Amino acid sequence: MTRLLVIGGGAAGMSAASAARRVAPQLSVVVCEAGGFAAYGMCGIPYFLGGVVARPEDLLAYPPSEFRDQRGIDLRLHTRVSAIDPAAHQVQVTGEGGSGPLRYDALVVASGAGPVRPPVPGLDGPRVFTIRSLDEAVGLRRLLDGGTVRRAIEVVEALPRVLGNVDEPIAAVVQAELERHTRVRLGTRLDEVRDGPGGLTAVLGGAELGTDLVVVAAGVRPTSDLLIQAGAEHLPDRSVLVDAQLRTSLPDVFAAGDCVALEHLVLGRPAWVPLGPAANKTGRVAGTVAAGGSASFGGIVGTAVVKVFDLEVARTGLTVAEAEAAGLAADATDVVSRSRAKYYPGAQPLHVRLVYAPDGRLLGGQLAGREGAAKRIDVLATALHAGLGVADIAGLDLGYAPPFAPVYDPVLTAAIKATSRLASQSPSAAGGS
Amino acid sequence: MTRLLVIGGGAAGMSAASAARRVAPQLSVVVCEAGGFAAYGMCGIPYFLGGVVARPEDLLAYPPSEFRDQRGIDLRLHTRVSAIDPAAHQVQVTGEGGSGPLRYDALVVASGAGPVRPPVPGLDGPRVFTIRSLDEAVGLRRLLDGGTVRRAIEVVEALPRVLGNVDEPIAAVVQAELERHTRVRLGTRLDEVRDGPGGLTAVLGGAELGTDLVVVAAGVRPTSDLLIQAGAEHLPDRSVLVDAQLRTSLPDVFAAGDCVALEHLVLGRPAWVPLGPAANKTGRVAGTVAAGGSASFGGIVGTAVVKVFDLEVARTGLTVAEAEAAGLAADATDVVSRSRAKYYPGAQPLHVRLVYAPDGRLLGGQLAGREGAAKRIDVLATALHAGLGVADIAGLDLGYAPPFAPVYDPVLTAAIKATSRLASQSPSAAGGS
Repeated sequence: MTRLLVIGGGAAGMSAASAARRVAPQLSVVVCEAGGFAAYGMCGIPYFLGGVVARPEDLLAYPPSEFRDQRGIDLRLHTRVSAIDPAAHQVQVTGEGGSGPLRYDALVVASGAGPVRPPVPGLDGPRVFTIRSLDEAVGLRRLLDGGTVRRAIEVVEALPRVLGNVDEPIAAVVQAELERHTRVRLGTRLDEVRDGPGGLTAVLGGAELGTDLVVVAAGVRPTSDLLIQAGAEHLPDRSVLVDAQLRTSLPDVFAAGDCVALEHLVLGRPAWVPLGPAANKTGRVAGTVAAGGSASFGGIVGTAVVKVFDLEVARTGLTVAEAEAAGLAADATDVVSRSRAKYYPGAQPLHVRLVYAPDGRLLGGQLAGREGAAKRIDVLATALHAGLGVADIAGLDLGYAPPFAPVYDPVLTAAIKATSRLASQSPSAAGGS
Repeated sequence: MTRLLVIGGGAAGMSAASAARRVAPQLSVVVCEAGGFAAYGMCGIPYFLGGVVARPEDLLAYPPSEFRDQRGIDLRLHTRVSAIDPAAHQVQVTGEGGSGPLRYDALVVASGAGPVRPPVPGLDGPRVFTIRSLDEAVGLRRLLDGGTVRRAIEVVEALPRVLGNVDEPIAAVVQAELERHTRVRLGTRLDEVRDGPGGLTAVLGGAELGTDLVVVAAGVRPTSDLLIQAGAEHLPDRSVLVDAQLRTSLPDVFAAGDCVALEHLVLGRPAWVPLGPAANKTGRVAGTVAAGGSASFGGIVGTAVVKVFDLEVARTGLTVAEAEAAGLAADATDVVSRSRAKYYPGAQPLHVRLVYAPDGRLLGGQLAGREGAAKRIDVLATALHAGLGVADIAGLDLGYAPPFAPVYDPVLTAAIKATSRLASQSPSAAGGS
C-alpha cells in the first residue's frame, strides 16, 4: 500500500490520518477538507459563539502545521471531493489542493453530517445561518461582533416540546431553563423569512416577528452522497453501514464519524447517533485498520450530554419513545433528588429518569440538573454496556461525600424505586395469582 | 414478634428502625443510642467543624420528634447497652432511657466504629479530641468558637505518606494539596502531649511543638465488644460477620453499619470498609429482615470519596498495595488528563490510576483533581460490579460535552493506555514467543 486518502478533516478524519501515520510511518497520507479548518472540536462551536472560547483557532486540537510538519500528513484545506470511483481506486478533487483524479490504495470517508434546511422561503439570505462548521461560526461571530444584531432572543420550534432526544419529564426541565433566558414558542412553524431594510421578518403561523438574525437548527443528516453514489450500503436515513473495523461495503473504502451508522448495543442493530466521542474513536479504528493495523469499534449506547444555559442534561440508551419506536416494551421511573447531601449548602435538584424493560433490564436513562447531571450519566452508560438491570443498579457501591451526592446517590434512589415498582407489579407480589 | 430492639441511633440503626416500622406497623421498635444525637450524617461533621454547615441540628436527617411522633419509634438518647444475652433475648441498659434488662424478639446491633487512640501519654486531656460523634464535634466547635485556639495548623503522620487507602501517585497529589494549606510532617511520631499554662506541647520525635489543640485521627475500629462478648463470629479486625440478610451468628441478632464486615466483591470475601452508604443500606436490610420482610445486601467494592481542601479524591476496588496484600497480582496505569475540553476555560488536571489483573480484569481505580474526580469513580465502581476489564472500559460510550470532559474521557484515556500496555506485554505482541 502506498497512499491512504482521507475525505474530511474533522475529528474522525484527522484521527484516522494520525492513527494511520502511527501504524505505517512510510505511508503517504492525504487529507482533503472542503472547509478552511481541520481537526477542530465541533462541539466547542457554541462556546466560541457565546464568547466562552475567544478565537476559532482555540478550537483546533492541533494547528495544520502539526499535521503537515510533525506528522507528515498532506492536509489539503479548501479541497473538495466530488466523486469516488471505488473500482478505479480514485476520487475527483477540486479546490486549492488540486483538481482532477487522485488515486488511493485505501480510502477513509469522514465526510460528517450537514444541517437540515427546511424548505422555507428566505432561508438562503445572508443573515440566516446554520452552524455546522467552524467556517460558518466565524461568519456568524463576525456578524454578532458588528453590533447590528439586537433582536434574536426567541426559540421557535414546530413540535410541541423541546429536545426530542429526552422524554417529556426531562424536556420540561429543559424548557423551564430555556424560558428563564429566552422566549420559547412551541408548536410554531416558520413559514417564511423576509429580508428588508429594517432587518428580517420571520413569518410564524401567519404572525410576523422582526429579527436581525435567524439561526436554523433543524437537525443534521449524514453527508454521505459520495459514498451512496459510489454504491455503499446504508440505512434509510442515509447513514453508511460499516463493520466493526469501519469497512464499508465498497472494497478498500472505510468510513468513520458522523456519516456512519454504528452498532447500538441496546438496540442490537446499527443506528445513526452522530456525536464527537464516536467520531474520534471510529476515525482512529478506521485509520489503524486502513493502514494495516488491528483495531475494532465495540459500539455505542447513545450517550449524549448538553449544557443548556446553567442546566446539565444527559441521556443514554433509549428513551421510552425510542424504545417504543423500536418495538421494545419499556417502563420508566422518575425521581427528583439532589446533587449534594441535604445539609450541604448549594445542593441543586437532580432529575433522574430510568427506562427499563419489563424484566428490569436497563434500557436507558436521562438526567437533568444544575450540577452533577452531566457525568452521572456514565454510571448508566456503563450499566448498559454490562447489561445490568435496575436491581443491579440499586445495589451499586457508588461514591459518597457530602459535597458531591446524597448518601443514596440519585441514581440509586431511582433504581430502588424502579426495583420496588417492578416487585409490586410481579405476580407473586400481587398475591401469588 | 413483639419487639425489635436497635442498638445505636446512627445511620444504620435509624435506617433499621425505620425499615422495620414500614414492614411491620404494629411492631414495638426501640432504639438505644448512647449519645445525644440520632440519625445524623456523620460524614457531615468535618463541614460542621469547618463552618460550612452552621448548626449540629442541620446534620440530622430527621429530628427525634419525627421518629417518636411520626414513625412510632421509641428512640432513647443517652441510653447505653452494656451487655447482650442472646439466649435470654435481652440486653442490659443504663442511662436516661432506663436501667436494667430489656427484652427483645429481634435485635439489630448498629454500634458503629470508634476512634483508635494510640498509647501516647497526654491524649486524655481536655484539648485533645477525637471526632467520631456529633457530641465530640460540638465540644470541639465550642472550643474553636471560644477564640483560644490559634495554633493547630500542622498535620503529623507517623507513616512516610498521607492517605493510606490510595496508592502513592494519588497520595502525592493529596499531599501537595495539604501542603498548600498546612504544614505536613510525615514519618513523625507523636511521643507525648503535655498540657501547661501556655497551651499544649506536642513532643514529636524529641522536638517540642507548641499548640492549642490536638486532634487525633489515627483511624477507627469496630465497636463490636458487645457482640463479640456475646459470642458473635468476627474477623481478626473485630468486625462482625453477617450473611446477606445481615444476620450474625447469634440467633435473632442482626448487625449493620460500621461494625460489620461485608462481602467485598473484588476480594470475594468479607472485608471491613466502614462507610456511610453501606451503613444506610445494611441498616435498611437488617431492619426489613428483622421485622419479617425480605431484603438482601449485595456487597461492596470499596468505593470512597473525600474532599481535601479544594481537591476531590476518590477510590474504588483495590489499590495495588491492597491487591498485593490479598495475594493478587496487580498492575497499574496512571494518566494525567483534564476535567474539560482543552479549549474550555477552567479545565483542571485530573489524575487517574487504574489497577488491574494480568488478564486485564479491573481490580480498582483512583482519581484526584479539583473537579470531576469525585463522582467519576462511579464508572469504575460500576465496572467492578460488572466484572469488566480495562479493554471493556476503553470501549465505554461515556458522556461528552466540552464543559464536563475531554472528548476522550480521562477514564477512557487511562483504560486505552492500560489496554495498550497489556497488549504490548502479551506473548504474541512480544513476537510470538
